[in-house]
Amino acid sequence: MFDNIRIVLSHTTHPGNIGAAARAMKTMGLHQLYLVNPRHFPDAQATAMAAGADDILENAVVYASINEALRGVAFTVAMTARLRDISIEVKTPREAMPQVLQEAAVQPVALLFGTEMSGLTNEEMGCAQLGVNIPTHPDFSSLNIAAAVQVMVYELAVAAQSFKPAVREIQPAPHERVEGLYAHLEKTLIEIGFFTTQNPARLMQRLRRLFSRTRLEDEEVNILRGILSVATAYNARLKKRYSEEHPDVQKH
Amino acid sequence: MFDNIRIVLSHTTHPGNIGAAARAMKTMGLHQLYLVNPRHFPDAQATAMAAGADDILENAVVYASINEALRGVAFTVAMTARLRDISIEVKTPREAMPQVLQEAAVQPVALLFGTEMSGLTNEEMGCAQLGVNIPTHPDFSSLNIAAAVQVMVYELAVAAQSFKPAVREIQPAPHERVEGLYAHLEKTLIEIGFFTTQNPARLMQRLRRLFSRTRLEDEEVNILRGILSVATAYNARLKKRYSEEHPDVQKH
Repeated sequence: MFDNIRIVLSHTTHPGNIGAAARAMKTMGLHQLYLVNPRHFPDAQATAMAAGADDILENAVVYASINEALRGVAFTVAMTARLRDISIEVKTPREAMPQVLQEAAVQPVALLFGTEMSGLTNEEMGCAQLGVNIPTHPDFSSLNIAAAVQVMVYELAVAAQSFKPAVREIQPAPHERVEGLYAHLEKTLIEIGFFTTQNPARLMQRLRRLFSRTRLEDEEVNILRGILSVATAYNARLKKRYSEEHPDVQKH
Repeated sequence: MFDNIRIVLSHTTHPGNIGAAARAMKTMGLHQLYLVNPRHFPDAQATAMAAGADDILENAVVYASINEALRGVAFTVAMTARLRDISIEVKTPREAMPQVLQEAAVQPVALLFGTEMSGLTNEEMGCAQLGVNIPTHPDFSSLNIAAAVQVMVYELAVAAQSFKPAVREIQPAPHERVEGLYAHLEKTLIEIGFFTTQNPARLMQRLRRLFSRTRLEDEEVNILRGILSVATAYNARLKKRYSEEHPDVQKH
């Protein structure tokens, strides 16, 4: 049922939380645990807190970077303590789950959880197409990470009971292809001097937001990168011609 | 908002779970924690896992018996791993919460959680008017107790957002009054020899089930206990007269 849904825990500090998250996953029938740079893993505390979900810990995949953990993923959901976010749309768990199931019916989906102290970085948030905020009391929003996993997988399991996959119109490109486009785009924008008067990080975030909403297909990534390549080549030709016609001007 | 809702943890083994439950409660705006005979409390592990919800631990009330913890409570919800139960109706958290809020609008409500290993005893289950089962994967239903608290208070908070209390028709009697009736009833049934051919425990459970459904009012408890008292007195008079008329027969 949930073979296409992975739980990704980034830079988890306490191994007990990894074990408790594994247990939470297993109670709701999820099995795919990905760990990005955990401080301690494997660890006896993780095993103790897993309390029988050892198989999930044993099969957990450990990576050094978020991009490796999201390889092949076409839809990433980022947990956030903020109700609004500059870079992506934010929903409640209950609102989000039908979409998560819809996506997972055809392609890999990741639910992404940040560190205990500070959550996800802006860079990690930028990898997501959707944010999810678990509503909490305004005076005390400090949800334990394994508790957050439990709420999410519980909502997922409840939603799945009444879920029937519908026909999907688009086939979104996987994470690494979209990230490749962003990198290419940023490089090109630097090259053409677009960022000189702007805040590059903020602007890239706005561009990510735009493309997150559209859900780019593989072919569209090809087209956009084609445009960037052509623009760069044209630029290079212009520079070359300029330096040939003005040999006395210093190259920059 | 949730001043009328208490979380009751019975015979909790691991103090870390008490702390994690307190933290879960506070994230959703609940504050009333009752502990029945915890193995270790207060405890450093509880405080560590509370992670800022120390006030809930400090104000936690510790009792030696379930009856003390339920004093004044008019509606008790028991967590159960079973989907069906002989003694009470069982709902999912989502189905149960509107009723919980409805009850809590006028009188104290308890959400009752059993031990890590074996859940609630039959005696404890018998104190409840409603059972709640968190649906889990059939192969692994071992939900951590703090995770179960988190799911319940999360569902409560979500339900509360759209909740408007309606007028309630009846005013149910508190726990200790209903238990007093059950004790009186059982004593009377033993006295009249009703249990000789039956399984008393099972029969009392069926009677509890019946009265749980009706939600007895205070005045009704008075009436029923009045009937029991009169029946007993009548019985005593019969016995007395018989022994006076047949002085040669040995009293029993």
